[in-house]
Amino acid sequence: MASQYPELKMITLDDGFALSFQERLILRHTRHAPCLWMGTGTADIEMFRGNFSIKDRLDEKIALTDVNVMQQPSGWTLHFSRGDTAHAILDISRDDNGCLSLKLHNEHPGHNRIWLRLAAMPADHIYGCGEQFSYFDLRGKPFPLWTSEQGVGRNKSSYVTWLADCKENAGGDYYWTFFPQPTFVSSQKYYCHVENSGYMNFDFSDADFHELAFWEDNATLRIECAATYISLLEKLTARLGRQPELPDWVYDGVTLGVQGGTDVCQHKLDTLRQGGVKVNGLWAQDWSGIRMTSFGKRVMWNWEWNSELYPQLDERIAQWKQEGVQFLSYINPYLASDKALCEEAARRGYLTKDAQGKDYHVEFGEFYAGVIDLTNPEAYDWYKALIKKNLIDLGCSGWMADFGEYLPTDTFLHNGVSAEIMHNAWPALWAKCNYQALEETGKLGEALFFMRAGYTGSQKYSLMMWAGDQNVDWSLDDGLASVIPAALSLAMSGHGLHHSDIGGYTTLFEMKRSKELLLRWCDFSAFTPMMRTHEGNRPGDNWQFDSDAETIAHFARMTTVFTTLKPYIKQAVAQNAQRGLPVMRPLFLHYENDAHTYDLKYQYLFGRDLLVAPVYEQGRSDWTLYLPQDAWINAWTGESHSGGENVTVAAPLGQPPVFYRANSEWQPLFASLRQIAVQ
Amino acid sequence: MASQYPELKMITLDDGFALSFQERLILRHTRHAPCLWMGTGTADIEMFRGNFSIKDRLDEKIALTDVNVMQQPSGWTLHFSRGDTAHAILDISRDDNGCLSLKLHNEHPGHNRIWLRLAAMPADHIYGCGEQFSYFDLRGKPFPLWTSEQGVGRNKSSYVTWLADCKENAGGDYYWTFFPQPTFVSSQKYYCHVENSGYMNFDFSDADFHELAFWEDNATLRIECAATYISLLEKLTARLGRQPELPDWVYDGVTLGVQGGTDVCQHKLDTLRQGGVKVNGLWAQDWSGIRMTSFGKRVMWNWEWNSELYPQLDERIAQWKQEGVQFLSYINPYLASDKALCEEAARRGYLTKDAQGKDYHVEFGEFYAGVIDLTNPEAYDWYKALIKKNLIDLGCSGWMADFGEYLPTDTFLHNGVSAEIMHNAWPALWAKCNYQALEETGKLGEALFFMRAGYTGSQKYSLMMWAGDQNVDWSLDDGLASVIPAALSLAMSGHGLHHSDIGGYTTLFEMKRSKELLLRWCDFSAFTPMMRTHEGNRPGDNWQFDSDAETIAHFARMTTVFTTLKPYIKQAVAQNAQRGLPVMRPLFLHYENDAHTYDLKYQYLFGRDLLVAPVYEQGRSDWTLYLPQDAWINAWTGESHSGGENVTVAAPLGQPPVFYRANSEWQPLFASLRQIAVQ
Repeated sequence: MASQYPELKMITLDDGFALSFQERLILRHTRHAPCLWMGTGTADIEMFRGNFSIKDRLDEKIALTDVNVMQQPSGWTLHFSRGDTAHAILDISRDDNGCLSLKLHNEHPGHNRIWLRLAAMPADHIYGCGEQFSYFDLRGKPFPLWTSEQGVGRNKSSYVTWLADCKENAGGDYYWTFFPQPTFVSSQKYYCHVENSGYMNFDFSDADFHELAFWEDNATLRIECAATYISLLEKLTARLGRQPELPDWVYDGVTLGVQGGTDVCQHKLDTLRQGGVKVNGLWAQDWSGIRMTSFGKRVMWNWEWNSELYPQLDERIAQWKQEGVQFLSYINPYLASDKALCEEAARRGYLTKDAQGKDYHVEFGEFYAGVIDLTNPEAYDWYKALIKKNLIDLGCSGWMADFGEYLPTDTFLHNGVSAEIMHNAWPALWAKCNYQALEETGKLGEALFFMRAGYTGSQKYSLMMWAGDQNVDWSLDDGLASVIPAALSLAMSGHGLHHSDIGGYTTLFEMKRSKELLLRWCDFSAFTPMMRTHEGNRPGDNWQFDSDAETIAHFARMTTVFTTLKPYIKQAVAQNAQRGLPVMRPLFLHYENDAHTYDLKYQYLFGRDLLVAPVYEQGRSDWTLYLPQDAWINAWTGESHSGGENVTVAAPLGQPPVFYRANSEWQPLFASLRQIAVQ
Repeated sequence: MASQYPELKMITLDDGFALSFQERLILRHTRHAPCLWMGTGTADIEMFRGNFSIKDRLDEKIALTDVNVMQQPSGWTLHFSRGDTAHAILDISRDDNGCLSLKLHNEHPGHNRIWLRLAAMPADHIYGCGEQFSYFDLRGKPFPLWTSEQGVGRNKSSYVTWLADCKENAGGDYYWTFFPQPTFVSSQKYYCHVENSGYMNFDFSDADFHELAFWEDNATLRIECAATYISLLEKLTARLGRQPELPDWVYDGVTLGVQGGTDVCQHKLDTLRQGGVKVNGLWAQDWSGIRMTSFGKRVMWNWEWNSELYPQLDERIAQWKQEGVQFLSYINPYLASDKALCEEAARRGYLTKDAQGKDYHVEFGEFYAGVIDLTNPEAYDWYKALIKKNLIDLGCSGWMADFGEYLPTDTFLHNGVSAEIMHNAWPALWAKCNYQALEETGKLGEALFFMRAGYTGSQKYSLMMWAGDQNVDWSLDDGLASVIPAALSLAMSGHGLHHSDIGGYTTLFEMKRSKELLLRWCDFSAFTPMMRTHEGNRPGDNWQFDSDAETIAHFARMTTVFTTLKPYIKQAVAQNAQRGLPVMRPLFLHYENDAHTYDLKYQYLFGRDLLVAPVYEQGRSDWTLYLPQDAWINAWTGESHSGGENVTVAAPLGQPPVFYRANSEWQPLFASLRQIAVQ
């Protein structure tokens, strides 16, 4: 059965059908291997400090074996049924953008679960689903999609994970992420994006199908194909939005994560500058004051300048700015229940509610906070105005827009939508509030905020992602290494700007950040679009950028490498803004005929012409990586390689394995990296 | 709708029915709250050394909302359906024994999963399901029923469990057991027993129903009511069978677990007897030789006297027997692949097969073993003859009949029944083989074997259970404490003879058996029907019965306590043999109006007149326990208590908290315990 569009084909079979789109088999249905199930479940969702336990008591799951295909002007309407027990409609059409649209609708009142199986080939690779820290190729596993803490350890066979699980169910698992997204790219060169926000589970573990489970009716899937991955990402980002270019100062050095007050900031800045470090900013997350808890020093969640801890900050911000050093602060979408801003929000009725209609306060670890109801336009505007007045007007050139992933499912919102449905959408709403505060003050392009939480919509509104809270360790699932698949999977989900806390953040149990880890992370960060440090939650336990002269000298070298690359990185960021080409790219984006590149999760292209393979193991002096066929030059030795094989290179501290393309227009710039002093 | 039996009532409702039996509501069905589901799943069962990972890929689960009730001479036939998608029949009748019978039959070819919901009341307590180590009252949790290793640690929040899970998925969980059984007792005073052996999951977590899941068609449930728990156990054991009385020598002291050869046995026996310990037997599990592995010293699985390690054993057995000391050995239903007996079994075709029809060999940790096909009558008889010849004829008065829980699900059996169905039934078949070897040689009542694995049928054929492989630690889920709910849940499942390795067995990681643990375990064992020690799998790491003079003196005292109680214990064992009244009893068996007794899982009645509350924590000098209302005397101090409350008593080593009833016929015997010397 042909549609009016030749690229969209329906073949009706004896007891089913097959649907293809631009020669990709999308759906295949027979009575014995159906593509659609309906059912009934009762969700059991428990949250403790952003750690979710999600279970579904499944009461019913019914295969919809029977299907009746009706041709429509723009496609087909499929009536699925199973006798009288279950009915559903699938509308298949091609939208005005040339995109295949699948709209599911449950016709049976008792059912609230839908499973749809998309056809797959055994050899397909799958990428995306937001920011995935443990796997880049998602084939072989289910990926529940729910924004949450990312977990501490994230691997049930690690001791840290076990300890964190025992403590507060915080250990997490391979799929825990701040930024899930119901979007994936298949190596058949199509993307599939689902436009909903309820809980979903994309299961890629079967050889012949991908099973997408929805807990929300009226799921809408958009599928678009392209001839290349680059063109596919252009199409995906055209749909979802792209991040604008970064402020120019971002490329001018490292943003120092500093706490403790104006004098500490000044002192650390002076020390680093004297040591030759290029510093582009000071990021003081405790600008609003501090609160001591057993987890460590916490920020006071009352978003206004604390002039006791930060005397003369306003004047100093202006002075620093003249010296080329920006000041960055911190905010999140909660207000500490015991402080004035929360009281004001409560008085105005701007907090989310509990079942009794009272203000909902979330436990955050020895203190409570109210949740700003971003679905209430007045509350949203009030919070946006707070950002403008208390952060932008103070002179902040940026801030961490933290959290977004904690929206409890049992709170009640102004817009009347269930918090279970709004939970995933929340981070993008929070991003939008920050984005508009900048946009409306004309500061986009000058100031910057960075987020860890995300969802569909973050592409357009979240100016920069950071990888959240890595452990200060070498673990694959939650240490330095995990940042690489995180950046790449986010890239394949349409967000192309990603960086991480240099040295990691989570300092618990017996973990302490070593000097070696800090230096390796610094090396890696010089080949990401932003360099920014974090002290970690227990600063005294961690090696810091100013812990010794050698470390300062290391930062001096690597910030020089980073600033030397400024014109190249700016071009890569511009490509991301204009075409959705991510700054950190999987190799197969440019070497799609090289089958080996599809399995690489710990190396990437930084822009078009640099290949980076960060050292993520302790005590290494060399490193093995894969080079696709091309003319490569080792950035530090000048040695040439023609690629198509693994190479082992010396990898001392300060010389992370990096190769550039010999015939790049940037070849002279890259060659100049070898002139930068090695300390 | 009345049946011909007034105690069986069917009420048809507008859109359903309610079935009651002797005034217990058994089933309740409406269109919106149905009692039956059918579905389709694909089992994924993986075994590694008796540790099973069991998953079910659920393709379909359909509520059978519609029901058509047809009266039959002896009850009703219910046709359940859901349009054309699912059909099932439930035959309800009262059998000749006055037992309610529910027979389920799936009428739809594609379905292989059944869920039945039995009506429950929120306050109901549930006991049984075989040997449960972590919970006694099973309400609030699902209990998958599958015989397997019991796990090492058995609690995901324990470090030992985590280590064992990392090592070989061996940590286990709260429901892992050697002896599951689809039988439970409700505090509504009925039992429900399912006559099948496929994988089941009994889920007691809902307030209003118990959901029983079956992976096998034609499930048959038997439900019987009684006025008292005692009468209920009488009825249950009349159905399932009862254990005969124990050989008289069992009450004459401790059976010493010894390894290392004839001389070691003699030496340890002499040492203990010189120290005043009453020894009734030597149990040498390495009588057939040893094999060294990284787990520790293992027995050579080739079931014949190894005269190198045990020279003159035949003569010595006769001599020891004259001295009142029995010799016990060891066997299991596997034959080491590299030894002669396995070769003979293979030659005769007596091993189970793999999918290619070749002999199936199981990996047991650095060696392999063939599985004797007990469904092959010739193989069964050959193995039984082997027991008669090699064990009984040698003069063994008993043995550990180990294992039974490892039958792989991918092996093929002579009887043509799937190994997935036979897996649970295997332990009882193994018990029967041992039982008949004794029966046919006229040795029942003289000799004894003890098992850890069990299932329905073990009541009749397994002469004595032991609690398997506790850790040599104080953990609730896998240490001394866990033996108590294990004995009590087995008691409520119809098996009334239970004991444990004194001091525990599993010695891994950093666990080592302390002196205190050994002595507390010895104290506890004097109030069980059999005292038997085990060196553990790493004897050198553990405190042993002969590790110092104080320990020997402690065993002297506690074996004197035990032998002093001989006439009383014999009576209790006789009650078990005659009426199915377990030797170790939950308090509510005799104090059913005391609501508090239903929550006690770490204390028990030993026979009718002794109340025992073992100390299961380290470093304790007192202990708190509950006494129901009665006239109680502290066995060690003579102090009186009227009960109905918690009491705290001194609990030094050698004086486990034990109370006797003041008006017991055994009062003089109990009072004499106070004359036994305290060392």
